Amino acid sequence: MSTSGPRYRITVADIEARRKKEGRLVAATAAVTDIDSFKTYAGWKDLPKAKRWDSHLSKESASRGPCVLKSAAKYLKRPDMISLGGGLPTPEHFPIQSISMRIATGETGFTEAAAASDEGGKTVTIGKYDSTQPAENPVSEYDIAVGLNYGQAIGSSQMLRWVIEHTELVCTPAYSDWSVSLTVGSTSALDQALRMFCDRERNDMLLTEEYSFSSALETAAPLGIRVVGVSMDEQGLLPERLDEILSGWDAAARGAPKPHVLYTVPSGQNPTGATQSLERRLAVYSVCSKHNVFILEDEPYYFLQMPAYEPKAAGAARVDPLSTYEPAALSTDKFLDSLVPTYVSLDYEGRVMRMDSFSKVLVPGSRMGWVTASSQIIERYIRHTETCTQGANGFSQVMLFELLNNSWGHEGYIKWLGHIQASYTGRRDVLLDACEEFLPKEIVSWTPPTAGMFHWLGVDQTKHPKAKELSLLALEEEIFERCIEKGVLVARGSWFAAEQDKPLPGMFFRATFAAASAEKMTEAIRRFGEAVRESYGL
Amino acid sequence: MSTSGPRYRITVADIEARRKKEGRLVAATAAVTDIDSFKTYAGWKDLPKAKRWDSHLSKESASRGPCVLKSAAKYLKRPDMISLGGGLPTPEHFPIQSISMRIATGETGFTEAAAASDEGGKTVTIGKYDSTQPAENPVSEYDIAVGLNYGQAIGSSQMLRWVIEHTELVCTPAYSDWSVSLTVGSTSALDQALRMFCDRERNDMLLTEEYSFSSALETAAPLGIRVVGVSMDEQGLLPERLDEILSGWDAAARGAPKPHVLYTVPSGQNPTGATQSLERRLAVYSVCSKHNVFILEDEPYYFLQMPAYEPKAAGAARVDPLSTYEPAALSTDKFLDSLVPTYVSLDYEGRVMRMDSFSKVLVPGSRMGWVTASSQIIERYIRHTETCTQGANGFSQVMLFELLNNSWGHEGYIKWLGHIQASYTGRRDVLLDACEEFLPKEIVSWTPPTAGMFHWLGVDQTKHPKAKELSLLALEEEIFERCIEKGVLVARGSWFAAEQDKPLPGMFFRATFAAASAEKMTEAIRRFGEAVRESYGL
Repeated sequence: MSTSGPRYRITVADIEARRKKEGRLVAATAAVTDIDSFKTYAGWKDLPKAKRWDSHLSKESASRGPCVLKSAAKYLKRPDMISLGGGLPTPEHFPIQSISMRIATGETGFTEAAAASDEGGKTVTIGKYDSTQPAENPVSEYDIAVGLNYGQAIGSSQMLRWVIEHTELVCTPAYSDWSVSLTVGSTSALDQALRMFCDRERNDMLLTEEYSFSSALETAAPLGIRVVGVSMDEQGLLPERLDEILSGWDAAARGAPKPHVLYTVPSGQNPTGATQSLERRLAVYSVCSKHNVFILEDEPYYFLQMPAYEPKAAGAARVDPLSTYEPAALSTDKFLDSLVPTYVSLDYEGRVMRMDSFSKVLVPGSRMGWVTASSQIIERYIRHTETCTQGANGFSQVMLFELLNNSWGHEGYIKWLGHIQASYTGRRDVLLDACEEFLPKEIVSWTPPTAGMFHWLGVDQTKHPKAKELSLLALEEEIFERCIEKGVLVARGSWFAAEQDKPLPGMFFRATFAAASAEKMTEAIRRFGEAVRESYGL
Repeated sequence: MSTSGPRYRITVADIEARRKKEGRLVAATAAVTDIDSFKTYAGWKDLPKAKRWDSHLSKESASRGPCVLKSAAKYLKRPDMISLGGGLPTPEHFPIQSISMRIATGETGFTEAAAASDEGGKTVTIGKYDSTQPAENPVSEYDIAVGLNYGQAIGSSQMLRWVIEHTELVCTPAYSDWSVSLTVGSTSALDQALRMFCDRERNDMLLTEEYSFSSALETAAPLGIRVVGVSMDEQGLLPERLDEILSGWDAAARGAPKPHVLYTVPSGQNPTGATQSLERRLAVYSVCSKHNVFILEDEPYYFLQMPAYEPKAAGAARVDPLSTYEPAALSTDKFLDSLVPTYVSLDYEGRVMRMDSFSKVLVPGSRMGWVTASSQIIERYIRHTETCTQGANGFSQVMLFELLNNSWGHEGYIKWLGHIQASYTGRRDVLLDACEEFLPKEIVSWTPPTAGMFHWLGVDQTKHPKAKELSLLALEEEIFERCIEKGVLVARGSWFAAEQDKPLPGMFFRATFAAASAEKMTEAIRRFGEAVRESYGL
């Protein structure tokens, strides 16, 4: 079997055809979802089955049973059954009769001005009882009465159908028994995943990039999970180094069994901005397969992949990609083909749990995302969710369903992603232009990021006049403090070191191009350059 | 110091006066909240300080450090600081320009008809940039740009201010350094609390009612936390029995240290419907104080306290309390005085973490509630939230702020609670009328609940013709199956047994009056009665 990339492709038209055949989705309060019924690719059953991961699970996860009250929902299938079972409030008691939102349709682009205008915007409304209106006058398949009541931990059937379709469109999973669950965001998904796979009593350790997302490290530490950092290059973690660590693992010396979980951010990695190529992903997957390592693929920036940075010619004006962005011109296929394939696309063993997020592409405050993994892993994930967060909140589910399913559809959402991608490309270019202009290249070096929202600046410690007197950490602090004095906040590289007790591999600072205006980003980099120059006495 | 009940009372007028003095709340994206600045009772500083709970914390909780990226927010206070620090998206990228909701004002009551009508309903709107409109044209203090971005794990200042005021109004905390944090609902709060206070490696056990909320038991079990059930009467758990268990604790025989955490649902307990009186709460608190036990007070049904059930006279029609409910006639004081004081009101040591929920009184789908405890405990709670759920979602925060703060205010919300209370009272009465009419009292017995949404039916096993052949569990199953056959779903008592390996204290079934219509509830109880009669051969 080839493992060089996705082995099939479905289209939005395929999804629409399947839905037409299915007919209207009927899913009442806390309905149970048949995930497979929403899969579009007809050949899914012929794909290989996922491996079992029982030996990888923690004691906590392995011991989870189903929720007895939620299980009783099975009796409610009988039409004349009256439930005095679960304490679900009646929607009559919900104080909200309808919810409306002002959004851009995409017809004239996705800017705030478009959303506000008559031509480019519309107001959409979610009623309390939309899903149970008479068949001759259908409104939405989802509503406030269902969406704001208790639901299943995995998510509502309505939102899950959209997520399954989108995942199949983007990830084209490579094995048959893949499944999904909504999450309360990827921070929560990672907390649950670490508790599922790592066992404090077993002294389990976690593999990750040598510079890793600080919040991920802070999630692992209190659980007693020590971290092994894997060296990186401009494409992220090095498979050879990963293989070396695992092949030479000395359990006695380490006081820990050989690690069986890798946490990685493959695209626009936080903090380094590195993006793994397809070849890199294949190599990493192959090492994980060799050592039976499970992969936690965290991809908040996946859709923020962008073309390579082109320095502008001297004196030329920078063209903002957003100013030339035409939603009508962007085809779904063209957009999807521009992205490096996901680990799920390559994963023929069910070795991956992918974490998807709406935080960076819609709103962080939705606190809703989803995970994709084998049905075995998803089942354990749901058991955990049932007694923890109970799953994604109802407001996010009904409102994002209205936006993504009823208003934009899959194609509209891809066009929105194109808009966001163009906007981040423009922001990245502004930041990098400023770096070209204001930073002393003999001291500061970088690789232009091709995804995400972060730029990683290496500062050569060896060239510092006090290199022999001051530790790397002390120098980093000195430059950081100078930055603060000059009025620019950047993140210190040491905050992201996977192994806090090891010497740092170098001096780095992380800058984001996510939020500040073009003018302010430029000024901020000027200030940063000044701070470095002063510190180095240039 | 007296411990007989709340020692002060603040009023809505006091809150309004404090707010007027404070002026407009300015709290931008991810602003840090000064909790104490929102306290209205001027004498709070003179109350005793909470005890320290370091010895009660788990290794996991004790080892949590602050989130390094969130801590960097402190540098942003300088007005000319440009942040290239945190990866917070710009609100320009949020696809929602405004959100509107149709709600009842309360002027003509809170029914769905009132909300839909011109006289009783209104449509309120949350804009994207409301909080930064010019001072001469102020809109809301909160908006989409702030609310739907990343925030602090504790919650937004806007929503926290409302929660602190409401908590002070209802709970009148009895010590000075009390604090609050928003939660992702009480299920999540309990999961976090158990991980904070119970340590698997220490073999910590948990005290609770002998019949307890099944999901709470399912939360504890996979964490390796064994449960000790405390016997109950019609007022819930028995303090004498609690004292006996703790006084006679044999750590060696139990394989566990003396328990230091009690989980209790004081009002409308799930599943028994029992409500602890003030005297009972004082007695339980005193035993916990004697043995240094920390109390987790779970109060989803606190505002669903209701007058005692009065059987209707033969042939008389039942008057629905909702039909006579007049919001104008309900004063805040009268409503609050009708409630048994909370544990927080009695807690002069900071021994309690109270969990409040909007699920039963607004919508379950908000997945937002709050906890009240000492600032030490809240600080640990927030550290946990930062690397787990990241706190309550933004949609719930902006929409419930609009409802509770901007539209209803504290007084309006109390009137809404009065409406909900009246509605549940009416539902309880219908269910109990049906029990009076259809159940064989020689076999089935009950105490009419005075809070919550559950009714607990005891069925006398000793009178069953097969009492000597069949186990209690087998009999319970037989009756349950008959119920299912007849088309009524009730919950089995055994599902709620705190100690699953111990003999059951009796045969019980839990019925809810939360959701089914009056007609269906009556029919359901008729079916249940029929099932019992048939099983008993009556």
